Amino acid sequence: MPPRVSAVEFRVRYAETDQMGVAYHANYLIWCEIGRTDHIRGIGTSYREMEEQGIILAVSEASLRFIASAKYDDLIRVETTLAKVTSRTMTFDYVISNAATGARLATASTTLISIDPRGKVTALPAEMRARLARDAADAA
Amino acid sequence: MPPRVSAVEFRVRYAETDQMGVAYHANYLIWCEIGRTDHIRGIGTSYREMEEQGIILAVSEASLRFIASAKYDDLIRVETTLAKVTSRTMTFDYVISNAATGARLATASTTLISIDPRGKVTALPAEMRARLARDAADAA
Amino acid sequence: MPPRVSAVEFRVRYAETDQMGVAYHANYLIWCEIGRTDHIRGIGTSYREMEEQGIILAVSEASLRFIASAKYDDLIRVETTLAKVTSRTMTFDYVISNAATGARLATASTTLISIDPRGKVTALPAEMRARLARDAADAA
Amino acid sequence: MPPRVSAVEFRVRYAETDQMGVAYHANYLIWCEIGRTDHIRGIGTSYREMEEQGIILAVSEASLRFIASAKYDDLIRVETTLAKVTSRTMTFDYVISNAATGARLATASTTLISIDPRGKVTALPAEMRARLARDAADAA
Repeated sequence: MPPRVSAVEFRVRYAETDQMGVAYHANYLIWCEIGRTDHIRGIGTSYREMEEQGIILAVSEASLRFIASAKYDDLIRVETTLAKVTSRTMTFDYVISNAATGARLATASTTLISIDPRGKVTALPAEMRARLARDAADAA
Repeated sequence: MPPRVSAVEFRVRYAETDQMGVAYHANYLIWCEIGRTDHIRGIGTSYREMEEQGIILAVSEASLRFIASAKYDDLIRVETTLAKVTSRTMTFDYVISNAATGARLATASTTLISIDPRGKVTALPAEMRARLARDAADAA
Repeated sequence: MPPRVSAVEFRVRYAETDQMGVAYHANYLIWCEIGRTDHIRGIGTSYREMEEQGIILAVSEASLRFIASAKYDDLIRVETTLAKVTSRTMTFDYVISNAATGARLATASTTLISIDPRGKVTALPAEMRARLARDAADAA
Repeated sequence: MPPRVSAVEFRVRYAETDQMGVAYHANYLIWCEIGRTDHIRGIGTSYREMEEQGIILAVSEASLRFIASAKYDDLIRVETTLAKVTSRTMTFDYVISNAATGARLATASTTLISIDPRGKVTALPAEMRARLARDAADAA
């Protein structure tokens, strides 16, 4: 089965525009983080709780492809899927679109690595990994 | 005697512009922080060391007056003075200008309050307060 | 009668936190802009349309008082009122609070000045000024 | 011959840290833009002038690999090379390191596409392309 897709929507902030008149490209990584936060909430935990339990997810790789631009006050939609889970990493895929027109603006992928509060790479807890695997594969 | 004035210069980043074609106003608070960091270094310590010693300075008040706009790649100059020190607070004043033309872009003031790592308001260490007072009054 | 109060809510982004573990103070100015955008929409226009009609509102003054901190993923509520309108300026007041607990986090005020696309200070169109005045005074 | 390498240094801003205590990953794209701006200046033009002449470079692809973290006030070094030039695109490669220790923090690559002020993909002017090609190949 395909993995679960979550969706979150928000408007482009004036602060996010640049002098080209469109949303500055680095903001798309922040938008991915909003999608990811929302997606993790859908698993029944929250990234905030994960950090409080000592599991820190650091971004180790990111790639983005920009297709069309977003303007101030546009309603943005981020669709997130958990594409892959290993003992120490998660890879999320994102489709960013204009919620009003449906136009695809960008696709992106980020890999996160699990570290402990001292910065050492550490395995994800087994229980969490099982939950994440179900979410990625939607094997329910 | 007047208090010591420190100066730091940097260029406006593309990311800092907005669709009006000028530097977005919230960045001026970040520029003040750059001026403040630089100013504290001139006292013979660093804000980084202060935090490592458990002294956190949280901004409690800020005011800004915007006079002229800054454009992408403009060289910005921030002049910072420590205007006032109390047992628990410091007030910094800032003059932000275009370093190439000398034109004044903004003036600002921020008050910071000393808190401990648990977020409780706490007095500044006596030795630090003495050093700050000398810097504010330039009594050397 | 008191002026109309609009309210908008959103969550603190991870990108907005700093190493103190709370939302970085410059973001509050961005949050004010979100409140202002939303408030202007309630007047029956949008700031986006205003700009498309050649009316640019530049922030000329800002003041903020920080009372308590916001953490990652906290639900933030910004209540905005249009406090004052003149022929060329608008002053907005903001109350920023934690939507879950009701705790007040900050109060702020910003004054915006009307400029044309060439950067020259210009009077607000009479029709718009009338609409803004009604909103500020809630004289309906 | 290898392409020219330019280098630019700056300190991590407090605003750029997150609650993990390190520079937030999206800032690395902004740091790449600083490297790129500096690199283009070394070609004998500036991105600001390019935009004034109607040549807009929009980021169409970006990829980043994060190796180690950067802390507040760390001195960051961005080394930029122009890896590839086509009639309509430029690809820049970046190595981001800690200037004090030499430790490599990240590598990145961005592709920019030339558009006109209406957003249409357009060829780079021949004279500019020749200059860029020399810079990329260091054929002098």
